[in-house]
Amino acid sequence: MTNGFTLVIHGGAGVLPSDTMTDEKAAGYHAALDRVLAAGEAILAADGSALDAVEAAVCALEDEPLFNAGRGAVFTREGTHEMDAAIMEGRDRRAGAVAGIFGPRNPIRSARAVMERTDHVLMIGEGALDVARQAELPFEEADYFFTQERWDSLTATLKMERSGALDDDPSRRHGTVGAVARDRSGALAAATSTGGMTAKRAGRVGDSPVIGAGTLADNRSCAISATGDGEVFLRLSVAHEIDARIRLTGETLDQAAARVVGEDLTALGGSGGLVAVGADGSFATPFNCEGMYRGWSVEDGPRETRIY
Amino acid sequence: MTNGFTLVIHGGAGVLPSDTMTDEKAAGYHAALDRVLAAGEAILAADGSALDAVEAAVCALEDEPLFNAGRGAVFTREGTHEMDAAIMEGRDRRAGAVAGIFGPRNPIRSARAVMERTDHVLMIGEGALDVARQAELPFEEADYFFTQERWDSLTATLKMERSGALDDDPSRRHGTVGAVARDRSGALAAATSTGGMTAKRAGRVGDSPVIGAGTLADNRSCAISATGDGEVFLRLSVAHEIDARIRLTGETLDQAAARVVGEDLTALGGSGGLVAVGADGSFATPFNCEGMYRGWSVEDGPRETRIY
Repeated sequence: MTNGFTLVIHGGAGVLPSDTMTDEKAAGYHAALDRVLAAGEAILAADGSALDAVEAAVCALEDEPLFNAGRGAVFTREGTHEMDAAIMEGRDRRAGAVAGIFGPRNPIRSARAVMERTDHVLMIGEGALDVARQAELPFEEADYFFTQERWDSLTATLKMERSGALDDDPSRRHGTVGAVARDRSGALAAATSTGGMTAKRAGRVGDSPVIGAGTLADNRSCAISATGDGEVFLRLSVAHEIDARIRLTGETLDQAAARVVGEDLTALGGSGGLVAVGADGSFATPFNCEGMYRGWSVEDGPRETRIY
Repeated sequence: MTNGFTLVIHGGAGVLPSDTMTDEKAAGYHAALDRVLAAGEAILAADGSALDAVEAAVCALEDEPLFNAGRGAVFTREGTHEMDAAIMEGRDRRAGAVAGIFGPRNPIRSARAVMERTDHVLMIGEGALDVARQAELPFEEADYFFTQERWDSLTATLKMERSGALDDDPSRRHGTVGAVARDRSGALAAATSTGGMTAKRAGRVGDSPVIGAGTLADNRSCAISATGDGEVFLRLSVAHEIDARIRLTGETLDQAAARVVGEDLTALGGSGGLVAVGADGSFATPFNCEGMYRGWSVEDGPRETRIY
């Protein structure tokens, strides 16, 4: 048990295949992850809360066009954006989440508004947008969220579908951003945000905004933010399974996370990973695919970032 | 371990307070629950699947105006209906769910269509309705779902809100329907459907359509359908917590369900209950409030129904 802070972030398990990743592109991803870590770290180093730190880190990830959330979110098959996000704090498992929204610049702030300004946990569509408007959160038009690269991905995926080819490029199939933190007081928090899958059907919701599947925080056990094949994460309640294993079996965070990602997820054919921080400040970043954009910052340690 | 079937249903933990329940009303509820049990039992007694049985039972509950799902669903504060439903089978944790829909006569059939006709688990709004249309499920207009009693509840709740009074009548605050079953082959399934809370904000989604919160099935452990304060069930991943306790600690279904409803739920101020069936055919119907409309049918046993 340490009294220092821990912050762990991810920019999704849908990394560019290593044979198409150039040094220049990789440097861009590392630099972006480092900026995100710096944003969250600044809060924790000033004795801020884990909740504020994960919100700030996810806002920075959403603002960064390289990652699939907020600006740079992928397109649905209709060429629109539908975003989902969730935030949770570990003291009393208070949580807020939004699904199927378009407009707020930072969906994660909409999720926090649901947590703090309503009696509800999960809100969708127009009702969720009303909460964001009442909270006076900034909204953006479609051109703000547009990136040529995501548009090209949509075109490529739809073309492959028409020709009957299977789109197995993970960088198109899934992408999500998230952060987990433990602050100096020992409190945990988790936040996740996503644009979903490229060319997804309108109305599809994955695991990101589902408490216990893609997002979870409990001061007794861990905080988790997941990325990958959302449907499998939902069917397994991946985040809550790790939380339960720690609380009920005495497994360490490392053991529980490795077991659920390496065995349970893999057994159902699910691909992806997650970032997790434990009540003791330890952390884990397991994934069962080629890579996961990720990074961490621990009290008195250097910021570190990884892709593969 | 028995080779017989077990079916357990609920019509929600939002029962009429016992001091306002007349003998005539109670007889109506018992008769309705008995008809629902008969519908599911007929399938199980003919060697049908747990999945078909819970779908048939929930369709019957949705068709019955006494309960808050399908016909007889409560109204949002705008006087509209928004319905949620989920279905799951225990063999490989396959699941389908819909949230925020209006139109399909039986939302539970929409959830099953998501499970069987798409690669997705959770779909919301228009996207979910498209799946129901493609499956050629029957749709109904607003007058089909209308009941004077639910409309009067909305009026009463809004009036209380204007006068600053707290609406603590559980029959207005929450109601949900659900069924869990074990068939003769030992397979489990769960289904849940709801109109949500009277006078809820548009876009609010509770635990019913969330796999691991209000609905869960795993042949290794149990099948669960919950009813109550959806937000607390979501924060605790109630259904998955019971499933995890059985799988990971060796607790019986009775012990795990009693612990989660009696202690964890109550500790966070959550009111409600659930129906559960175990891999061995045992069942439990715990609740921490005044009552829960419920009933069960076990191979070679009589159909039984309870309210308080």
